[in-house]
Amino acid sequence: MHIESEATQHLRHAAGAARAASQVLARTTDAERNAALRAMAASLRSHARDILAAIEADLAACTGTTAFRDRLALTEPRVDAMATGLEDIALLPDPLGRTLADWTRPNGLHIRRIATPIGVIGMIYESRPNVGADAAGICLKSGNAVILRGGSESVRSAAAINAALVAGLRAAGLPEACVQIAPDADRAYVAAMLAAAGLLDLIVPRGGKSLVERVQREARVPVLAHAEGLCHTYVHASADHAMARRIVANAKMRRTGICGATETLLIDRAVAPALLPAIVADLRALGCGFRADAAARDIVPDLDPATEADFATEWLDAILSVAVVDGVDAALTHIARYGSEHTDAIVAEDADAARRFLDGVDSAVALWNASTQFCDGGEFGFGAEIGIATGRIHARGPVGPEQLTTYRYLVIGTGQVRP
Amino acid sequence: MHIESEATQHLRHAAGAARAASQVLARTTDAERNAALRAMAASLRSHARDILAAIEADLAACTGTTAFRDRLALTEPRVDAMATGLEDIALLPDPLGRTLADWTRPNGLHIRRIATPIGVIGMIYESRPNVGADAAGICLKSGNAVILRGGSESVRSAAAINAALVAGLRAAGLPEACVQIAPDADRAYVAAMLAAAGLLDLIVPRGGKSLVERVQREARVPVLAHAEGLCHTYVHASADHAMARRIVANAKMRRTGICGATETLLIDRAVAPALLPAIVADLRALGCGFRADAAARDIVPDLDPATEADFATEWLDAILSVAVVDGVDAALTHIARYGSEHTDAIVAEDADAARRFLDGVDSAVALWNASTQFCDGGEFGFGAEIGIATGRIHARGPVGPEQLTTYRYLVIGTGQVRP
Repeated sequence: MHIESEATQHLRHAAGAARAASQVLARTTDAERNAALRAMAASLRSHARDILAAIEADLAACTGTTAFRDRLALTEPRVDAMATGLEDIALLPDPLGRTLADWTRPNGLHIRRIATPIGVIGMIYESRPNVGADAAGICLKSGNAVILRGGSESVRSAAAINAALVAGLRAAGLPEACVQIAPDADRAYVAAMLAAAGLLDLIVPRGGKSLVERVQREARVPVLAHAEGLCHTYVHASADHAMARRIVANAKMRRTGICGATETLLIDRAVAPALLPAIVADLRALGCGFRADAAARDIVPDLDPATEADFATEWLDAILSVAVVDGVDAALTHIARYGSEHTDAIVAEDADAARRFLDGVDSAVALWNASTQFCDGGEFGFGAEIGIATGRIHARGPVGPEQLTTYRYLVIGTGQVRP
Repeated sequence: MHIESEATQHLRHAAGAARAASQVLARTTDAERNAALRAMAASLRSHARDILAAIEADLAACTGTTAFRDRLALTEPRVDAMATGLEDIALLPDPLGRTLADWTRPNGLHIRRIATPIGVIGMIYESRPNVGADAAGICLKSGNAVILRGGSESVRSAAAINAALVAGLRAAGLPEACVQIAPDADRAYVAAMLAAAGLLDLIVPRGGKSLVERVQREARVPVLAHAEGLCHTYVHASADHAMARRIVANAKMRRTGICGATETLLIDRAVAPALLPAIVADLRALGCGFRADAAARDIVPDLDPATEADFATEWLDAILSVAVVDGVDAALTHIARYGSEHTDAIVAEDADAARRFLDGVDSAVALWNASTQFCDGGEFGFGAEIGIATGRIHARGPVGPEQLTTYRYLVIGTGQVRP
């Protein structure tokens, strides 16, 4: 006899409630969902004291690093920012009901493809309480019910935030099961979610490499994966020097820990002697270290040497791999070998070179004369994002409310039968 | 030490070659791919004798039923039809490079979302040789390399067809590895394909319930699943009687073995006494049997009684489940309980009722006054289909060349850095 684990039992129940809630959600108007988002925002603010107390308890139990504790920490302004985030999502256009295509067949059948919610989404993330609130807002906007499983260090604050969100849903007259959280920090719950084929329609993992790898290894449910971002900035021989310096400094150092940060600088041999020393000086002034190939070290001798493995490393830190290349094709070859099809940029004045680069790179986001750090739902104008998808199915790049929809067909006839 | 199975080794090699081929394919023009499709068609015709000899050998070794042997059999006209199918695919619009969205941000960044190939597709199907040729054509049109694994009973004919297709690719100057087949009928190859995360981008299974279930259970690779089609036709009280009779007869009996065939008739109580006897008579004349609920048998007493399980059964045969319902909501409740979110139809003159039905059903395809058998890529105008997707991610309903694409973003700036 197969005995279900407690986590599996809980998830089965939660997913059933989420399915029923999603069917109610799918019939709501955009105005109803926006009202609920505003009620959830108000409720976050009115529950701020409870949320901050829960955070204190989480922090008291937390043995992590200072950086970790900083991500976990919430202040009253941060709670307010979470609430404002939900209000901002309410201002976004309705992602549902859009006519994606529309045509009439020779037999008179009128076919329309319209955007519709995915259904029930499982979100697995780390101990960053605001991620749960953002995800709940994006899912609700797009008509999806969500089950949130945050990091074990944030279990008390996640519960307090969820209680506030649910109070908002209740006030707005929507089912409380639209937003649910895992009952505890037991890792078995992640396993139960990954195994929940037919119960969850999609899992969105957001976290480090080990989480994403576990999800991809174990999941029986479709996954909108966010794997590593090994992003390149390629400085073409035709680049405007000032622009190249500005873009490389921003792409690497604006924030080093995000997936759209540039990890490797590729620079054309023709321009490297004139430009690389200045780029290195700019970045050094910002605290960046280097792993450079032999040709780059011929130009700037005191750079640390790069190993083969360095070019395959997502630093997520103030370190830049540097390689000198011979033109667009060599840059593309390097990117095809070491890149992760996430985000790659060219800096060039030569439009033909840029066009060849953009055509030749198969990344989710390819940029010309802009920083790789623009790979972001907010910067794309999506208003909010639940993550950056690095797979090749369903959605690629920033994932906002629109990307959390699927479609269905309406076919309108006048009695047609198939010959 | 982990020793790779022979199947895994072969697949790793094939997928590597497919990846390289897909990168070449992604750079081809539509005209180049169309020329290759025509060369493949010509090659199928010129290799017809080899293909028919291989089929003879397959049939000689086959111990299956007559129906099975009929699906396996190929005649010269059937080979010609396969070739014509490829030529027809060449006439379809280019699914690649389409601008799916296009906008400019306040900071001047110009963002464009364009259609791009998925990459390397694994196709697992049964012993129907033409399916392999069709799939190869659709994948090539959409810029994807494909690895085909057909049924074990068709291993010789699949090899002969593949040899012809590859000769066509070679003649057209495209890489032979654009279209590959499994080396033998070993079931281990399916396992290797399902485990090939990172090597295959997508698996399309096409076959019976046991294949699809195995794929969904084991796959480590995204799957465009084609699960069962438990389709309903709902005859509303306002239906035109003649239209309802015509549609139900076609939806059930045109072809009973396809996933878009209606399995259950729902009929409003108000109209059942007047209409159900005629529908039953029509279908009986076509050889159909019935599993009917008590209310239906009150009207037509000699119908076989339906069990609960009958309403959850995809007959794929000349059997129709019948239930009498009280209006649109009751029909929707029945469909939500027993349906498979595949294809469901309403027959009604009352536009409000139809609208409520179309809004309330969450099937991939919802029809008003048309036969469920229209759920088909050809009937949708896609020109060709590789299957019908029943999942909620990436694509739903008929899957043609356009659905075998993904997208990427091109971002064009003038030196923007992120604040």
